[in-house]
Amino acid sequence: MEELSHALLAGRSPGDAPGPSLGRRFMLSLAAEDSPHFPLSGFHTWYAERCARRFKVSRIPFDALEQWYSEPGSGNLRHRTGRFFSIEGLRAEDGDRVTAGDARPIIVQPEIGTLGLLVREFGGVLHFLMQAKMEPGNINTVQLSPTVQATRSNYTRAHGGSVVRHLEYFARPGRADVLVDLLQSEHGSYFLHKRNRHMVVETTEDVPPHGDFHWLTLGQLRLLMRREHVVNMDSRTVLSCVPIDSAGFAPAGAAGFGAAVLHSLSPAARPRHTLAELTRWLTDMRAGAPGSVRRVPLRDTERAGWVRTADAIARPDGGGAFAVIGARVEADNREVTSWSQPLLEPTGTAVHAFLATRLDGVLHVLVQAYEEAGSLNGPELAPTVQCLPGERSRYLDEVVSAPASRVHYDVLQSEEGGRFHRAESRNLLVEAPEGFPVEQPPEYRWATLDQLARITRFGHHVNIQARTLLACLPSTW
Amino acid sequence: MEELSHALLAGRSPGDAPGPSLGRRFMLSLAAEDSPHFPLSGFHTWYAERCARRFKVSRIPFDALEQWYSEPGSGNLRHRTGRFFSIEGLRAEDGDRVTAGDARPIIVQPEIGTLGLLVREFGGVLHFLMQAKMEPGNINTVQLSPTVQATRSNYTRAHGGSVVRHLEYFARPGRADVLVDLLQSEHGSYFLHKRNRHMVVETTEDVPPHGDFHWLTLGQLRLLMRREHVVNMDSRTVLSCVPIDSAGFAPAGAAGFGAAVLHSLSPAARPRHTLAELTRWLTDMRAGAPGSVRRVPLRDTERAGWVRTADAIARPDGGGAFAVIGARVEADNREVTSWSQPLLEPTGTAVHAFLATRLDGVLHVLVQAYEEAGSLNGPELAPTVQCLPGERSRYLDEVVSAPASRVHYDVLQSEEGGRFHRAESRNLLVEAPEGFPVEQPPEYRWATLDQLARITRFGHHVNIQARTLLACLPSTW
Repeated sequence: MEELSHALLAGRSPGDAPGPSLGRRFMLSLAAEDSPHFPLSGFHTWYAERCARRFKVSRIPFDALEQWYSEPGSGNLRHRTGRFFSIEGLRAEDGDRVTAGDARPIIVQPEIGTLGLLVREFGGVLHFLMQAKMEPGNINTVQLSPTVQATRSNYTRAHGGSVVRHLEYFARPGRADVLVDLLQSEHGSYFLHKRNRHMVVETTEDVPPHGDFHWLTLGQLRLLMRREHVVNMDSRTVLSCVPIDSAGFAPAGAAGFGAAVLHSLSPAARPRHTLAELTRWLTDMRAGAPGSVRRVPLRDTERAGWVRTADAIARPDGGGAFAVIGARVEADNREVTSWSQPLLEPTGTAVHAFLATRLDGVLHVLVQAYEEAGSLNGPELAPTVQCLPGERSRYLDEVVSAPASRVHYDVLQSEEGGRFHRAESRNLLVEAPEGFPVEQPPEYRWATLDQLARITRFGHHVNIQARTLLACLPSTW
Repeated sequence: MEELSHALLAGRSPGDAPGPSLGRRFMLSLAAEDSPHFPLSGFHTWYAERCARRFKVSRIPFDALEQWYSEPGSGNLRHRTGRFFSIEGLRAEDGDRVTAGDARPIIVQPEIGTLGLLVREFGGVLHFLMQAKMEPGNINTVQLSPTVQATRSNYTRAHGGSVVRHLEYFARPGRADVLVDLLQSEHGSYFLHKRNRHMVVETTEDVPPHGDFHWLTLGQLRLLMRREHVVNMDSRTVLSCVPIDSAGFAPAGAAGFGAAVLHSLSPAARPRHTLAELTRWLTDMRAGAPGSVRRVPLRDTERAGWVRTADAIARPDGGGAFAVIGARVEADNREVTSWSQPLLEPTGTAVHAFLATRLDGVLHVLVQAYEEAGSLNGPELAPTVQCLPGERSRYLDEVVSAPASRVHYDVLQSEEGGRFHRAESRNLLVEAPEGFPVEQPPEYRWATLDQLARITRFGHHVNIQARTLLACLPSTW
């Protein structure tokens, strides 16, 4: 397993890998809580400066959205060029009956974007080139994004001369060593079949400095993920795909629950179920998910209680987890300095939590097979608790009412700021109480963090909410 | 890699696998061209008897289809219960423009069926329990199908008491040892997002004999795949997921091109590209496929030239690769003895072919990244040539005009007989001529058969046409 994961990611065949494995190199970076080359003290000054820059995001009525229009007949919100994305309707259907489910608004964005992290060694330790990026929906406007967030049209143009800085490392074959290259899903409750390409590439070249970019080790990023709204969703999901081999790694700081988390990330952590059992169980769950969905006119959501006013599409009965709104953005570091667009605004905070317990001394998290309406491949592995704003679910009470002694991570993080307005989730890692039953309902399974990471690296198997947690959990160490 | 494939399939962790590996056990079965327990001579008598049974399939007008109706407004063909499948419209859309592509009829069948092969050792050799099954669209009516072809509703009922014979081996956890359990795609030009669950399970129990079932080794099946229309599509696709480790296996019969095929199936075959390179290339191809599709009313296909008459939906201009027709079936070995249903009738024979060549002495086939309109995950790995009836494509001439000395497999096989009427494909393995360039366009790559088999076992990476070829190619040995 180890062999495959690393070989697939490193582009090497088993047996011919020279030097330390990729998983060990990333582990060394995770252990580096600061960098002599790019110390955190300097980072904080730089980041504060970036955040001080002036951006203005204001709500506007749909009629005032430049270049956007409501399609006659369907009512779908579209851009006049046909590009970017559209807001349409989605209706779930039961496999056995024609019965129409409730339609809801959904973002349709077929293009596959690239989220790319550039890494480079400084003093023998891998550093990630992070970008201070403004997104209109961000809670503190500027967060750390991957080196590039590019659409396919950016990407294709990159062969000529790109407007997206550093894109050449990802788009030009041979320019950098490709360590990770995977397609992953995004929020299926908000997006229809959305996928992004996740890339990590390594260069040995000197990269010209630029004021919007900063190098950080995984260890520094881990500390920053203890803070709210600093590391953006796109960064977290790419970081979740990075292989970390913590086997035998016992630095001075490793003790208590954090050490258990670190051990669970290692291939030496003996799991309750084999990887084969877990993937077969997911196949079973996928085969049993009978539904299909149909894109319908946005207007069809009215029958399900969605009401369109001049400046919002929302459910006055409180039944929806979000509203669609219009926004105007004025900024100074994007390709265009001002634009307007629809945004999806959640009605509250989502909750994404793992319950964890030790089985035969090894920390396991409880994953569930969970399908969202816009999921492409049916159920994926999700956190124990995944609740949209206002939703309730099994284990929610255990998670939110746990005593502080059992709560090892509890941090608000932002979701995608380019499409969502101030969307945040509360991310938790909670130790299950004594006597918590090992046997759980059939749609749940215990997995080590190493297993979750390996399944993540298959692509399209672990959802965005679980991937955020996977990226954040090393910060408990 | 080897370790992963086998561990994933056998449900074992690397290192703790007792006895010969699964790949070796299947190789032994592949080498067994006859079985002392179930000799081919007996098989042929049994099969001839099954084929002699009376079935009647007749074309009828849509109005005469019992339980099927045209939905008012959309014109979609549906079953009154909402079950089974429907015939609707599908329109491809460009990612960057709203431009509507041409709509075509498509089969919508969201339910995931199970295709299951039961295996058991006789005299130390694995045998597969094959079923003589009538499907209305089959060219010779009765073909060898997997032990079970079950819908989810069959499957769920199986826990009580099933109408599908042998289903309990697949549906009841722990009843048999699960060797393969994967989701795979089906024809994306005819089906929207269709997926099937592929299972191979092993029992050590005595299985009560039944007149519709017969045990066969892989070697016997290999000989039968040299014949036209005997081993059905569902059997071929499940067989393509079975791991075969031919490393060091050199039985007396192995010589010439067949031996090269056998060697290419082995992990010892040194590939031109690593598995990591191949999967990254496929990711790149998937990320670059910009399209999205939309289910539309069947009626919308009229604008694209599809004309509906009393007994067919077809393109009189010859532009479509198929027509939709109605059929009545009278049979005596299915759950119900008579029924009627729509079928999709291709206008001719499809061509699926691999060009093969030796690179550094190792046989490679030229795979392409190919997307069909109804594909769920974008492009999958496809044969070098994949042409619907009437279509032309790159390399088609090289394949169909090759001299016999370079044609190592050329056999007509049937596609899915439950939904298609007399759909057949010409399946070829053709050696490339001398001087055929190693460098090929970016959407093509050379792969060994072992690599193709491994990628198949990821699920959703190799399309049904390439899987049929993968299953059939050992028959050249």
